[in-house]
Amino acid sequence: MAEFNFKVIKKDGYARKGLIETKRGNIKTPAFMPIATQGAVKFTPIEFIEQIGYELTLSNTYHLLLRPGLERLSSVDGISEFMGWNKPVLTDSGGFQVMSLSKLRKISEEGVKFQSHIDGASHFLTPENVIDYQNIIKSDIQMVLDECIQYPETYENVKKSMELSLRWAERSRNHYNKNKIYGAQFGIIQGGVFEDLREISISETVNFDFEGYAIGGLAVGEGHEKMIEVVDYTAPQLPEDKVRYLMGVGKPKDIIEAVYRGVDIFDCVIPTREGRHGIAYIGSSSINLKNSKFESDLTPLDEGSDYFVSKKYSKSYLNHLLKIKDPLGPMLISLHNLNYYFNLMVDLGTSIDEGRLDIFREDFYK
Amino acid sequence: MAEFNFKVIKKDGYARKGLIETKRGNIKTPAFMPIATQGAVKFTPIEFIEQIGYELTLSNTYHLLLRPGLERLSSVDGISEFMGWNKPVLTDSGGFQVMSLSKLRKISEEGVKFQSHIDGASHFLTPENVIDYQNIIKSDIQMVLDECIQYPETYENVKKSMELSLRWAERSRNHYNKNKIYGAQFGIIQGGVFEDLREISISETVNFDFEGYAIGGLAVGEGHEKMIEVVDYTAPQLPEDKVRYLMGVGKPKDIIEAVYRGVDIFDCVIPTREGRHGIAYIGSSSINLKNSKFESDLTPLDEGSDYFVSKKYSKSYLNHLLKIKDPLGPMLISLHNLNYYFNLMVDLGTSIDEGRLDIFREDFYK
Repeated sequence: MAEFNFKVIKKDGYARKGLIETKRGNIKTPAFMPIATQGAVKFTPIEFIEQIGYELTLSNTYHLLLRPGLERLSSVDGISEFMGWNKPVLTDSGGFQVMSLSKLRKISEEGVKFQSHIDGASHFLTPENVIDYQNIIKSDIQMVLDECIQYPETYENVKKSMELSLRWAERSRNHYNKNKIYGAQFGIIQGGVFEDLREISISETVNFDFEGYAIGGLAVGEGHEKMIEVVDYTAPQLPEDKVRYLMGVGKPKDIIEAVYRGVDIFDCVIPTREGRHGIAYIGSSSINLKNSKFESDLTPLDEGSDYFVSKKYSKSYLNHLLKIKDPLGPMLISLHNLNYYFNLMVDLGTSIDEGRLDIFREDFYK
Repeated sequence: MAEFNFKVIKKDGYARKGLIETKRGNIKTPAFMPIATQGAVKFTPIEFIEQIGYELTLSNTYHLLLRPGLERLSSVDGISEFMGWNKPVLTDSGGFQVMSLSKLRKISEEGVKFQSHIDGASHFLTPENVIDYQNIIKSDIQMVLDECIQYPETYENVKKSMELSLRWAERSRNHYNKNKIYGAQFGIIQGGVFEDLREISISETVNFDFEGYAIGGLAVGEGHEKMIEVVDYTAPQLPEDKVRYLMGVGKPKDIIEAVYRGVDIFDCVIPTREGRHGIAYIGSSSINLKNSKFESDLTPLDEGSDYFVSKKYSKSYLNHLLKIKDPLGPMLISLHNLNYYFNLMVDLGTSIDEGRLDIFREDFYK
């Protein structure tokens, strides 16, 4: 097995403060991962991501397979070195693309056939080859291939899909155990919004003894209430001594509620994607800097922040950058949001440490 | 007059090493200015521009008038504060746009009527109001309104145009002298590629006793030889104790030859515009990172450089960023080029200091 370790340092109710140790470095949890799907946090120099304090980024096996391709990544120390990051990386397998690129793929028992959205070429992903690919990518935390099913979907279809993901999980773990693979391997719990299906998925997946467990198939349109309902009964059933990862989540509120229920790590496009569209997170809400009322607002983006972007640049200047369509605007707002998310995770960790997560939640919602 | 001073510190032939002093800070010459037309060095955080060592940027009065507009700039300490730069800024008046936006403008004795390329609104620039505008912009070095004529053009038309620029220069200087204006004012020598017209322009313009002098109307298609020919007879006729500015120039070779002939400051879109298109300057030439031969070239962009972008990122990674069309690629290559240009200016200054500019030129062309 890979040099990978996780320990819970402190608990506050279900919430955990912990530490992940990998060959490339440690990750304090609860943690949020900036998304670098294709080996770049969109628009944003990786030096700034490091400067904020991030210790883990997320890339995507399917996308990296298409570009830059595995040949290039095999000549360096994987995607982490290629993108100038040199810290731990988690890679999704392509399971999410099974859903998001549903018109371009065909699922069979064996795996998923994708037609590249770039050049139309065929790619066949199997539970086994995505492990080999992630081994070449040198991903520190590798996700198994699963089927991320859409929402809403019938009980019968969710059940069938969850069972397929289970059979793939078994093949994944067998292939992983038989080969010397670079990183740790995480299983993924599926089952939609159906509690009994989630429970089957948990008990079966946990049997394969992965290094960590993800809650998949959420943040696909079910909304905050249903999402937290699933997390509420899923997270506590996962092994106490393993990392818990809520995939694709979320808004600050989603993250706070999931941490409260015992989730450790998160990834989401929100801080960067919304940042590129001019939306900046401040306090417990957000503002849209494209709004004309900010044209003449010369106050700093966030007076309460000591992050250089947030305290230096005025809303008026950022509004101007968005108007002239210079990517510098989206970049600066992405950075502001990523700093906001980082601080949120630090604050959650501190609150757990001090046994006052309840108070933090209350204060946040005030 | 503004707190503005220039002194020549060392000469090597016609070439000069000098120092410009302004209220916002000093500028070592020879110097190159990164272009921030609309108050942003395209795609590029200003913190990186400062980190490279730049002391002066260029913005454009006409563009700033349209966006963000003068009202916003009047509420802060001008464009320099608005863009988070807080160092000296030079502004072009709009004279170049007289040429580049020729379909959208009408010239009269009084001034230039522009139809905004953004919303079609009319703007009338006069020699007087561009000074008032630059005063609001709080430009440390302000250019007079002139007519930058296209190339090629008949002797008669160049003569008429140069004479109009002279009448505008007189009005500019009168308006400047009668009002308390924030920055220094530079006159602009015109006359195309005709030596006698350049000589008339020089002797008349110098009579108005500007704080500095620009050589305008070059880098408009006349080519390196003709450009340097004009610089060769123009620069030495300009006052020894005043800054000399070659507008819109140029390639490294153009800059070296102009410094050799006594020019002090430069601006050009080349490092950033070409950077955005994947062209990186290395040694005495450039490479196009879009070229497929760089796909698998995992060597650093410039092994000889100690700039973080140039030594850290591989040609392969930059090729990948260009391929996935992430603005991070253009940004990193722009920064590499701006660092290259900055070092070129430093090397030219050092060579002048050490009396070996001749040797530097020879080495560069080898």
